[in-house]
Parts: sequence; C-alpha cells; structure tokens
Amino acid sequence: MPATIKSHVINARWIVPIVPQGKVLENHSILLEDGVIKDILPTKNLNGGYGQMEMTNLPDHLLTAGFVNAHIHSAMSLFRGYADDLSLSEWLNHHIWPAEARFVNQRFVRDGTTLAVAEMIASGTTCAADTYFFPEVSAKVFEENYFRAQVGIPVLQFSNAWAKSEKEHIIKGLQFYENIRGHSLISAAFSPHAPYTVTDLGFQQVFEQATNLGIPIHLHLHETKQEVETGLIENGRRPYTRMRELGLLKADLQTVHMTELNDEEIESLYENQIHVVHCPESNMKLASGICPVNKLIENGVNVALGTDGAASNNDLDLLAEARSAAFLSKVTSGCPSSVKAEEALSMATINGARLLGLDERIGSLEIGKCADIIAFDLSGISFQPIYNPISQLIYAANGQDVTHTWINGECLYKDKKFTKLNLFQLKGRVESWQKKLGGHE
Amino acid sequence: MPATIKSHVINARWIVPIVPQGKVLENHSILLEDGVIKDILPTKNLNGGYGQMEMTNLPDHLLTAGFVNAHIHSAMSLFRGYADDLSLSEWLNHHIWPAEARFVNQRFVRDGTTLAVAEMIASGTTCAADTYFFPEVSAKVFEENYFRAQVGIPVLQFSNAWAKSEKEHIIKGLQFYENIRGHSLISAAFSPHAPYTVTDLGFQQVFEQATNLGIPIHLHLHETKQEVETGLIENGRRPYTRMRELGLLKADLQTVHMTELNDEEIESLYENQIHVVHCPESNMKLASGICPVNKLIENGVNVALGTDGAASNNDLDLLAEARSAAFLSKVTSGCPSSVKAEEALSMATINGARLLGLDERIGSLEIGKCADIIAFDLSGISFQPIYNPISQLIYAANGQDVTHTWINGECLYKDKKFTKLNLFQLKGRVESWQKKLGGHE
Repeated sequence: MPATIKSHVINARWIVPIVPQGKVLENHSILLEDGVIKDILPTKNLNGGYGQMEMTNLPDHLLTAGFVNAHIHSAMSLFRGYADDLSLSEWLNHHIWPAEARFVNQRFVRDGTTLAVAEMIASGTTCAADTYFFPEVSAKVFEENYFRAQVGIPVLQFSNAWAKSEKEHIIKGLQFYENIRGHSLISAAFSPHAPYTVTDLGFQQVFEQATNLGIPIHLHLHETKQEVETGLIENGRRPYTRMRELGLLKADLQTVHMTELNDEEIESLYENQIHVVHCPESNMKLASGICPVNKLIENGVNVALGTDGAASNNDLDLLAEARSAAFLSKVTSGCPSSVKAEEALSMATINGARLLGLDERIGSLEIGKCADIIAFDLSGISFQPIYNPISQLIYAANGQDVTHTWINGECLYKDKKFTKLNLFQLKGRVESWQKKLGGHE
Repeated sequence: MPATIKSHVINARWIVPIVPQGKVLENHSILLEDGVIKDILPTKNLNGGYGQMEMTNLPDHLLTAGFVNAHIHSAMSLFRGYADDLSLSEWLNHHIWPAEARFVNQRFVRDGTTLAVAEMIASGTTCAADTYFFPEVSAKVFEENYFRAQVGIPVLQFSNAWAKSEKEHIIKGLQFYENIRGHSLISAAFSPHAPYTVTDLGFQQVFEQATNLGIPIHLHLHETKQEVETGLIENGRRPYTRMRELGLLKADLQTVHMTELNDEEIESLYENQIHVVHCPESNMKLASGICPVNKLIENGVNVALGTDGAASNNDLDLLAEARSAAFLSKVTSGCPSSVKAEEALSMATINGARLLGLDERIGSLEIGKCADIIAFDLSGISFQPIYNPISQLIYAANGQDVTHTWINGECLYKDKKFTKLNLFQLKGRVESWQKKLGGHE
C-alpha cells in the first residue's frame, strides 16, 4: 500500500486537466495532499504557506492526468517481438499459445508483469486493465509497485497452467476476488477470453458471479471478421448477438477490439451503455480490422484505448496509441476532424477511467481526485514551436518524453528515473527469460 | 563542405546493413575512412592496426543506414501545430497558404529549414528530398549543416515571395541549379507543386528543362480523391493520365502520396519505373487517403517514405513513419505479413536512396558506400527482451532513441548532443517566429 505522503506542489508550464476537454492552463501549480489533488491555481498566486512544502518545478513541462491503458496482457511483455508479421490466428495457434503452454508459470507472470509496469510507469500510464493467467501474481506485482490496476480473472475452456477447466477458473477467480476486495489500488473483473474460447455455460456462470459481486466483465469481442464469420457458422448468429442472448450486455461490460460492427450493434452498445476498448496498433499489426471509432463516438459510445499485450504491438506506449487512434479514425472516416487531439487525449485518460468505473477518482486533474499525474518535457527541438500544447503532445510526443509519474500522489518516476522499482534486478530477470525462450524460431 | 576525416571504427552490438534485407550482424565493427565505409567485420577480428584509430563503442546499440526522408517541406516546421485536425483543402486554403503569403521570406526558410535539419539529425534522417520556396536558402542550410539533400525547385502558377510566375520559378530554378551543380551533398530536382497548381505549359517547360539537365521531377500526385475527381471534371481525365500525356512519366519521376490508384495506373508505374513516396502519417492526419502500398510492392514499384512537412504530421520521425507504413499496409490489405519489419526498414533507407538515384552511394551499409550511419540505443526497458532487433527497431523504437548520426563520415550527433549545430541560437530564432506567427488563431 502506498505510504501517506506529505503535501507537495508541482509548478508546470502547462497543465491540461482533461476536464473540460481542450483546456490548457499556463504557468499553474497543482497542490497534492495525502495522494489527492487539493488545488490547481496560477503559480503566481501561490502564497507564503506553500513555501514550506516539497516543490517540483517543471518549467518546460506539460502536466496531465496519468493514462489509463484499458486493455493489456502485462506478462506477455516477455513475448515482445517473439513472433511478428503474422495473423491473429496464426500468431495465437502456432506461436503464442504453444509458448504459453511451455513457459508460463508464476515466475513468468511476476517478471513479465513487472516489465510491463516498468514500461508503463516510464511512459505515463498510471492505471491498466490487465488480463492474464495467475491474476493473484499480477495483482501482487501491481501492489508492490504502487500501480493502479483492474486485474482480470481469466476464464477459458482450455486447460492451462493456472486452471484446468472453466469451472476451476471461476472458483480460483472468486478466491482471488476475496483476497483483493476493497483494495485502494487494485480491483477485479471477470475476463472470459473470447466467444470462441468460452462455452455458453461458462459465460452464464461468469455473468452470474460478476453480477453477484458487482464487478465488470472484460471481453475480447469481434476482434476479426473471421471471428464473426466463424461464430455465424458455428452458432448461427454473430458473437455479439450470442452475448446479448446470454445476458452479458450490461452497462459495466468492457468490450475489447470490436472491429466488426453493424449499425444495429452500435445502437445497442449505446443503449446498453457498453464500453469499447480500441486497440489500434494491435489491430493494425495483426491485420485484425479497424474499429469504427468515429461512428461509435457519434453514437455516444464511450471509447477507451488499450495497447493490448506488447507481443502484438510491440510497445506499451499509450500516447502513441492515442495518436494512432486519431490518425486511423481520420483516414478511415474521411473526416480530418474526427478524433481531434483533445478527444484522443480524453480517450487515453477519462474515457478509460469511465470504462473502469473509476471516473470519480481518476482520469482527469480535478480537485478531490487521486493524484495520478504525469509530466512531459516539451523543451526538445522536435516540439518547437508550440502553438497548441495538446496538439504537440498527441501528434509529436511519445511516452519517452515522460519525465515524472505520480500514482496516488506517490512519485514513482522522477527525472526519468524509477524511484522504487529495481531496474537492475528486472533486467537480469528478463534477460534470463530471453535466454530460456531462446529466440523466435 | 564536410572536412575530410580520419579513420574511425565503430563497434556495435548489432549492425543491420539493409542489404541483404533482414540481415543482422552481431558484435561487428564498421571501419570508416574519408567518409566512406571501408570494412564491416566481426569486432573480435579487429587486429592491432585498428588500435590507433578513433573508436566509438556502442555496446547496446543497433547501427544501420541513415534514413532517407523522401518528401519534406523543411521550412514548414515553423508551422508545426499551427492548424490541426483539418482537411487538406481547408488546411491549405484557409491556414497554410495565407500564413505563407504573410510570413515566408528568406529568414523564415533559413530558420525553418535549420529546425527541420536539427530534428532530422537527432532522429536518424541523413538525407531528405526537400521542396519549398527559396531553394537556394534551404540548400545553404543543408550545406552548412553537413546534411545530404535533394533540393526541389518549386514551380507554381501562383505568385509568391520567391517568384511571380511559372516562368520566373523556372528561370530562378535554373540559376539555382547552376550554383549547386556537382555538389557532393546537395542535388537538385524540379518540383512542380501539383496538377492543380501548375499549367500544362508549366509542366511542359519543367519536363524539357529537367530532361536537358538530367535531373529528376518531384511531384505531389493523387494526394486525395478530390484531386482526382476535380481533375476529371476540369480536364476530362485523371491527373495521372494528364501527366502521362504531358510526357512526365519517365523513370526518374518521383510521385508523392498516390492515395488514389487504379490497376492500370499501378501497372503503368511499374512499366515506367516511376517511384512513389508514401507519406502515411500526413495522409492519415489530413484524411487524404491511403496509398495502396501492398499492391505497389507486389507489382514491383519502388516505394519510399516521407514525413511531408511537420505542419501536417507533426514530427519528422521517419522511423515512426516506417512503423505507420507497416501497420497501415497490414490492416488495409488484410495481410499481416504485408510490409514486414525488414521491408519497412528498406522503405526508410535503400528505397529512398533508389528514388533519389543515390542507391550506389547511400541507403545501406556496404563497403564503398558513403558513411551515412545512425545508432539506436536499445538498452531501455521498453525494448526488452530482444528476440529480433529489426522488429524491435520498427515496432518499438522511435527517432528519439537515436544516439549518434554520421553523414559522409562526419559525426553530427554524438551521445544525443549536436556536435556542430548551434541549438541555443536555433531555439531563440524559433521562439521569435512563434511570437510573430502569434498562436494558431
């Protein structure tokens, strides 16, 4: 658990509070107390009382809310670059799933998740919706690193290192839930893998348990055209329709990918207030398809962003994902004002918070919210001149420009250095996995 | 002119020579002499004679050929973020062209081009095909900064700060050509702006002069569907057909954008050995359209990459452009093996060299070629583990990971610091332009 911190003032050249969208505050300061944002005010109005506080001066920096990565398989960072330039089915069936069967265990999840957490903290992500085997191990890694996460309880009909049957996944998931319930940084969700890997009975049981506990369901859905077509052949209806018939279409359903959507489905998403996670880079890299983000937004559907696992991306840079989302939506809708810079930034922050049911606590810099804050140094030559800092952030910056990351007021990354995470140990562990996995052949 | 340098050895963890495609040399060294690559050999085979040479040790780095940015308007870097989220026609007609009419002069071109050169050197681009007003000023900036460039002679029917008529553009262009002819780093091309801004007579005269001098033509073509449709209405034929009838379809034609192409045109491109510059990020940001890269490559057309001006991108990071090209081609062709990592890297290097007619001299690390070399530090946590360095470079790295840049053997960027360029002076000048241009309203 993060230690209670003292008061702290951050002075920044620009503060982008996210709410209201597009707002930029110049030469403002943000006051933190016990992990919460207490005030945001012009730096010149800081009075004497602030003089005794710990102060961070960021004269060339843009401060904004930490990013929410709404879909990631953290531990898969150990498979980064393991198999590239392949289709989803080839990649899963012939590379990733065999490698998972062979290598995934608790240590793999511990080290892979730590690797992902390190990359996320260093690139401005302060909260992630994770799904992988051994959720109790991932949760421990997140907790130990002061990182905010929704940890998915995986449910699959296939036997794996964590559980042998759908039923065992659910039983273990319930135990896991009991252990983390009420945690200040970690929450749980059920994460039935996908329509093609979970039975009707499995979905029904997941739905029942999730409803009982009041936790969300996080689901890969309509990732590819092939998934929809196969679903039609095997079940006589589109996976989305099957999910509806199984009763899953409730307000806290988190659907991931959604590259194939007809107008009726888009309307149904809005009516049922279902959230969508768009993973543009993974979808492009695997040639999975393109989520119709422009239409979803026009129809009032909440769209958040995810990197997916590093194995199909190959990084966890959510800012790059926001840029890709803006670019892709513009060119596929034919409308250059689709997903403007400020909209892309909302997708990377407040929309993700909303999807996780955390928008009262995170996703924007507002008084009373948790101090999940990131800083970008925009002094580099590649950002000059700066007419519009939000444009510059979305269209010219990368996660690598992050210099500071706070979660719950805890400074985890300072002047591009980790304050707590043991980088040396992590690198050693990753190197030994690299040797074990033995190249990509 | 770059000074003759002494011998120099660079030892690197990985060398990716580009030719042959996909090759990775581990723990190799590259020997430079008088700006030329003299040898590439395993580091362990370096014998005593090398001991007296200047040596650069890059133990965590990937060394490859400098990038060729095959389409840029360098000076427009001063308009970076000046007007975003707009269509090409709205952006040009209501923002960029009015601002150019008001602000562009020799000093603007000097400072904007210097800004672009700084960003390119720092992100691994060692050669650019530039087009803007006052080519003599840009050429001087490139020369003074030891940067390799093809400088385009702009031709437009509209009056501007540099020339009042098509004729005057051509006359001034010929004078410019005389002044830089035979330069070791700078070459010239005619750059008639686009089918909708140059008359038939203008194109004919450009073609005649370019043929006489044996220099290439660099042309925006089929950038948008609207351009093609308007061409059809106004000229009774597609712009491509009009160019063919004007005789422009020769082997050294450099066509830029090409988002709208039918099968006949793709075949004609191959038959006439015409090069295409793909600018994926500019095309996406302006919602211009998507160049059918997969089809072009399948049909044997040489496809290089460009950032376009920073005003429509908003950066000059050619590595990011290579990733976008790979992603976009995969998802639009539905084929995840389209534009594999190694193919994307070729597009960013040797294909650009080929387009400029410089592939005997640059575009790969081969003995006898010019030492245009860049180094990426892959020690960061976001690159681990490294199963395949080329995948990691394309899918996980950015221009910001460049630590060293050599052009013609001259080290212009060393440990992320410019060795020659005066960054302080440049920043001051850019700041004063920012004040003058006065925000984006």
